[in-house]
Amino acid sequence: MVRRAARVLAAFSPDRPALSLTELSARSALPLTTTHRLVSSLADAGFLERHADGRYHVGLRLWEIGALAPRELGLREAALPFMEDLYEVTRHNVQLAVREGTESLYVERIAGRRAVRVLTRVGGRFPLHPTGVGRVLLAWVLETVVEAVLAVPLRAYTPCTVTDPEALRQELAAVRARGYAVNDRQVTLDALSVAAPVTSGDGAVVAAVSVVVPAGQHGPEALAPMVQAAARGISRNLPRTTYAPQRKEGRP
Amino acid sequence: MVRRAARVLAAFSPDRPALSLTELSARSALPLTTTHRLVSSLADAGFLERHADGRYHVGLRLWEIGALAPRELGLREAALPFMEDLYEVTRHNVQLAVREGTESLYVERIAGRRAVRVLTRVGGRFPLHPTGVGRVLLAWVLETVVEAVLAVPLRAYTPCTVTDPEALRQELAAVRARGYAVNDRQVTLDALSVAAPVTSGDGAVVAAVSVVVPAGQHGPEALAPMVQAAARGISRNLPRTTYAPQRKEGRP
Repeated sequence: MVRRAARVLAAFSPDRPALSLTELSARSALPLTTTHRLVSSLADAGFLERHADGRYHVGLRLWEIGALAPRELGLREAALPFMEDLYEVTRHNVQLAVREGTESLYVERIAGRRAVRVLTRVGGRFPLHPTGVGRVLLAWVLETVVEAVLAVPLRAYTPCTVTDPEALRQELAAVRARGYAVNDRQVTLDALSVAAPVTSGDGAVVAAVSVVVPAGQHGPEALAPMVQAAARGISRNLPRTTYAPQRKEGRP
Repeated sequence: MVRRAARVLAAFSPDRPALSLTELSARSALPLTTTHRLVSSLADAGFLERHADGRYHVGLRLWEIGALAPRELGLREAALPFMEDLYEVTRHNVQLAVREGTESLYVERIAGRRAVRVLTRVGGRFPLHPTGVGRVLLAWVLETVVEAVLAVPLRAYTPCTVTDPEALRQELAAVRARGYAVNDRQVTLDALSVAAPVTSGDGAVVAAVSVVVPAGQHGPEALAPMVQAAARGISRNLPRTTYAPQRKEGRP
């Protein structure tokens, strides 16, 4: 029953944050009566809340427990002051992401009101290949992960997106050589991002931090030292033990 | 079993983010074998992760699903740009909180590296009576909630904390009259906060936003218009339908 309840919770996504009982039943591939019983238990626990229109959404109690995840919490607390510093200089977007399988998961973003538009959101996932943070997370990872990413066709978000596997491999080698990643108009045509690796005590890359600014206004070379300095500050600031069992694959 | 799994998850707290199987069994009041089975299922779903030392903590997957909670997500996305504006002026702490029962739950905070120290954290709870956001959340709420708060002795965090029920009621009336709350050295002796209400489309208070600055440097009257303007901006920016079924108790 616990695995089934997990399937019900996993039916929610950024695209579908509110679902009816019928939709929950269909998306979790469970009979309606089972779904009804599970939803009722989950609602009792505060993990689901019922909307006025009868649909269900994830409850604040689940967010509260989820906020105790050390990879999110420890990282976020360590990163925020340095992200603030980056934001004060750029006044656009500052992002923090970790890798989950073959995708990046955004754990924090700071954005001004006049910031250049980005396609990502906190708690949301995004492919690794076109973004600055994604390339950092891919540059120091085990070959098996790179192969899994390259096993499916790479989506072209703009005419500038690198979609050729060999070209992406070369780009990852360049990221390793210079210590930071650049995405110039590869996600949206009006944005440029520069990303650098956040490392744990043992040198493994546990996250990536980036600034996203309007394309054509700043050279990545000018932004890189600042982003790298922030990434080093976050790395020093990390609660060390939290990260030990996780993602030891890559070392920059 | 779902309710029992919820009890296992609820065993984690900000004070105890990592727990052994024995601790989980004791804190959720379940037999060790049952706990073991539940923990195993929860780990399979990515809701728990096992630490190198054998203890368990909340998994990033649970944070990811929890981040879909509309009261957190919608509020946070609506609030962040305005919180940035407040941060740029004050360079200390900017906080956003909602009420959960008789406590406040902090859903976002922006803090600079040299910000005055605060006792609260994102995802954490705090009593309502001493803080700026707490008094805003208490000022426009049903009398039953105020009574529940006053039913237990109010803790004195500093010699300045208002702990007399009648004095707190008068303070709440003052908050309603002037439209914002002030906490001057009532949580820590070095901090002053000014908080204002965030309202949904129907006028219900759904959250509170505050700035926390060093005590003795700024008058609350100077900070209040800025905080109130930010709170109004967030209120306008809220996804309306999200909030409809929640907390209709108070109207400012």
